[in-house]
Amino acid sequence: MNGNMMAYQLTLTSMLAHTRRLYPDVEIVSRLSDKSLRRHTYRQFFDRTRRLAAALDKAGLRRGDRVATLMWNSHAHLEAYFGVPGVGGVLHTLNLRLHPSELTYIIHHAEDRFLLIDESLLPIYDQLSRDVHFERVWVISPSGKAPVPFEDYEEWLGAADSDFGFPALAEDEAASLCYTSGTTGKPKGVLYSHRALVLHAMAMALPDQLHYSRHDVVLPAINLFHANAMGMAHAATLVGAKQVFPGPYLQGEPLLDLMEKERVTIAGGVPTVWLSVLESLDRHPNRWKLMPELRVQVGGSAAPESMIRRLDRYGIRVIQVWGMTETSPLCTISTLKNGMEDLPESKRIEIRARQGLPEPFVDLRAVSDDGEVPWDGVTLGELQVRSPWVAAQYYKFPAAQDRWTDDGWLRTGDVVNIDAEGYIKIADRTKDLIKSGGEWISSVDVENALVAHPDVREAAVIAVPHPKWQERPFAVVVLKDGFRTTPETLHDFLAQKFAKWQLPDAIVFVSELPHTSTGKLLKSELRKQYQNWTWT
Amino acid sequence: MNGNMMAYQLTLTSMLAHTRRLYPDVEIVSRLSDKSLRRHTYRQFFDRTRRLAAALDKAGLRRGDRVATLMWNSHAHLEAYFGVPGVGGVLHTLNLRLHPSELTYIIHHAEDRFLLIDESLLPIYDQLSRDVHFERVWVISPSGKAPVPFEDYEEWLGAADSDFGFPALAEDEAASLCYTSGTTGKPKGVLYSHRALVLHAMAMALPDQLHYSRHDVVLPAINLFHANAMGMAHAATLVGAKQVFPGPYLQGEPLLDLMEKERVTIAGGVPTVWLSVLESLDRHPNRWKLMPELRVQVGGSAAPESMIRRLDRYGIRVIQVWGMTETSPLCTISTLKNGMEDLPESKRIEIRARQGLPEPFVDLRAVSDDGEVPWDGVTLGELQVRSPWVAAQYYKFPAAQDRWTDDGWLRTGDVVNIDAEGYIKIADRTKDLIKSGGEWISSVDVENALVAHPDVREAAVIAVPHPKWQERPFAVVVLKDGFRTTPETLHDFLAQKFAKWQLPDAIVFVSELPHTSTGKLLKSELRKQYQNWTWT
Repeated sequence: MNGNMMAYQLTLTSMLAHTRRLYPDVEIVSRLSDKSLRRHTYRQFFDRTRRLAAALDKAGLRRGDRVATLMWNSHAHLEAYFGVPGVGGVLHTLNLRLHPSELTYIIHHAEDRFLLIDESLLPIYDQLSRDVHFERVWVISPSGKAPVPFEDYEEWLGAADSDFGFPALAEDEAASLCYTSGTTGKPKGVLYSHRALVLHAMAMALPDQLHYSRHDVVLPAINLFHANAMGMAHAATLVGAKQVFPGPYLQGEPLLDLMEKERVTIAGGVPTVWLSVLESLDRHPNRWKLMPELRVQVGGSAAPESMIRRLDRYGIRVIQVWGMTETSPLCTISTLKNGMEDLPESKRIEIRARQGLPEPFVDLRAVSDDGEVPWDGVTLGELQVRSPWVAAQYYKFPAAQDRWTDDGWLRTGDVVNIDAEGYIKIADRTKDLIKSGGEWISSVDVENALVAHPDVREAAVIAVPHPKWQERPFAVVVLKDGFRTTPETLHDFLAQKFAKWQLPDAIVFVSELPHTSTGKLLKSELRKQYQNWTWT
Repeated sequence: MNGNMMAYQLTLTSMLAHTRRLYPDVEIVSRLSDKSLRRHTYRQFFDRTRRLAAALDKAGLRRGDRVATLMWNSHAHLEAYFGVPGVGGVLHTLNLRLHPSELTYIIHHAEDRFLLIDESLLPIYDQLSRDVHFERVWVISPSGKAPVPFEDYEEWLGAADSDFGFPALAEDEAASLCYTSGTTGKPKGVLYSHRALVLHAMAMALPDQLHYSRHDVVLPAINLFHANAMGMAHAATLVGAKQVFPGPYLQGEPLLDLMEKERVTIAGGVPTVWLSVLESLDRHPNRWKLMPELRVQVGGSAAPESMIRRLDRYGIRVIQVWGMTETSPLCTISTLKNGMEDLPESKRIEIRARQGLPEPFVDLRAVSDDGEVPWDGVTLGELQVRSPWVAAQYYKFPAAQDRWTDDGWLRTGDVVNIDAEGYIKIADRTKDLIKSGGEWISSVDVENALVAHPDVREAAVIAVPHPKWQERPFAVVVLKDGFRTTPETLHDFLAQKFAKWQLPDAIVFVSELPHTSTGKLLKSELRKQYQNWTWT
């Protein structure tokens, strides 16, 4: 027997209309590529978004059609975030850092009909235009006039119906599409529903999660084309918070300038962004007056304890999160439980350096060859998750269905331990884990130890096949300019921290390591290179 | 085209399992009817709830079967809140204050199969038992042994399967049932789905709404049988907050004792409960040391400004909410917007005395004969709402379908104005509103003015048919013992505040006013009594 409640749908449009009515004068501030600031209110944002929806409708957009964006973080990208799904289309955020051949593949696979693009990114379009065809291309130009032969976004919006009524949508309908830039295999698309994005925003906004409020000022220093920018724009819109978009300027100084000027209370991004912020703060410790209790949500990769401590000293509180494109993305958030504020600092930092507790309506488990591992803070297993905002399959990619277990959990590919309180700690990617004689060795742990050596700039530790142990750890190291050390010295340095069997059996020096377009270490490349290594 | 996300269901069981895993040692404290305190942890609560589900399953409960409760607020009632829906049953909370004939009607209409009852309430059961039949009756006894011939709840749980697995449920399935005790017509049932209760809990827990956190200690001083107790137990369970149940002891002193002892941070109840708390505080201003920033959510009827001010002085912050049985119940919550904390106190109190802003995913409008009224803080209209947690119909009562508009909104029956910021203010019930010569007069406003006179104890203002004006206001007044005044004096007193056409055309004195079983003024009775009044 079903309840007798209204079949009210959880859609982005409903979220937007609510915020328009209650917070019409709250601001959305954008830094454009010419460095000027543009200010809109939610009232204007709503009107512009409605015009975008009307214009797309008039352009012949049908329910479920894909509209691609090649854009930095700006008010216009936010308009696409709500306007495209609002009219029943699917927002396809293209990662502008990908190689043109990858973009071409993705655009073809997604069958994108239209493109919205920042004027400053037209050189990327030029590289693509021979191989892909969009029916129409609209250009967002800070000068207010797109170059010939492109259509100007502002002109197009200006001509659109200002009284357009958003269509009624079902919450399970697709709202947006994002491709994972995996280090192996073809990029795969994740097709988010309105329901997933709405529930994701509600859950992350809760007081014990990331605590989003209409009193906040939210700055996504993570690109909107990266896995929904950690949900920041959706959650800020849900609660009616002021939003600040930094455009392409994610370096320390311009970010600090913007955070001070606009009184930002929540920012978010990958660790490298905050390292850049730290460098600027260290250089000019008294230059910026930031909001007290400024919080930064850090995801993408783990924030080291040292970074958390250093930001603490400037009154900036790191909150780690974990997620991936397949999971909308947030699944875990590292805030302290009741009573933990009274723990000694070292213990608190240790907990905060974990990737956190599962949010409500996220089920997680860590699974090893022996089944589900205990919550003991030690035993490693692959993290598997279930949630209303976790994908059940890739978009048109049935061959990758082994990414899900038979009982319906997503295999994340991340290896974790879970402590007794439920906080997860990412140890490695499954494919980077080294399986030596039945024991697992975390490549990340050994890499972190190597870069702690004063002579080392960067290090990668990979598994190389071994006749006796199946696999053994193998270290590839880049030294800092002008520094010299020997493999033996590094070996002895590591031996202070690791058991003998965990130490790399070989350490080689190179001048550079391979990276993906998004800056991640390309270990698959290294594995290929050293697969036939002859152990001595 | 639908998104590719998991069809993960929003159920009470999922909420419960999450809290069990993350907050096993957080407490649930109950005051039993013998005044002793019982303490459980969420771990124990989960185990007991699972046993309850197993025992109901063994008793032959089928999906959708109704299980009635006649219980005060206690751990056992919370177990029923989750255990009954957890096994696919429908929790039917009976209002123990209703007349036995009403209870009989409701139990028959709901077709309840089983009953869970507090031992102290067996006298009510005795009054019903001739007219209703439950297949089995389980008695919760503080002494640990139910009187013959009843089955003992603890014994029954003790014998149940401790490893029972909750069944997979769909979120649209019915979870609970509550009847409205309207002042007119038959009681009508509202059948809540898991989805509605989950979304209701998530929305109310948000930072700008009621801000429920695992750091909170939550005390529902509103009965769990009243419209889901304003969602307090669900939201507290969602976030893993400590819960404190006061049993039948909702008077000022025992409540204050419990709030101090258990360090309560959020309490909730109807205004009369807080008036009783205020009286105790005024008598013994230094006796209790309450938590700083103790918040109380006040619903059921409006909290007068004076009450908000008086509680402020004791550091207790009133947050008004509005809702009804048909709406799960919360739809609006009166917290201040950004910047309003800087307004002068009188202005802040005026806003806080409104019933608040709509929560996310609550659409509201006020409709008069001329259509939707503007948000001007003056114009009155009937409040109409839509939300995933608002009923679309009554349980087995198609005759009442005119309660919903043709376009699917619930007619709340409350008359409100909405100010420019979106805060609603309840002016009246539609049926209590007086329509004089095309203008509306709020009976509540005139009543409030009358009771502000030092001689007046209670007052009711009703509409009485009038040959020329259709209806005119008519006041029925109870004077305080020993006080004497004249209708003319009261008329002049009112004339200082109201326009001439808003003044009652007659003021009569009586010794007592009629009330419903829940203490609400029974105006339908008065209207009947004075319907043939001859105007002079």
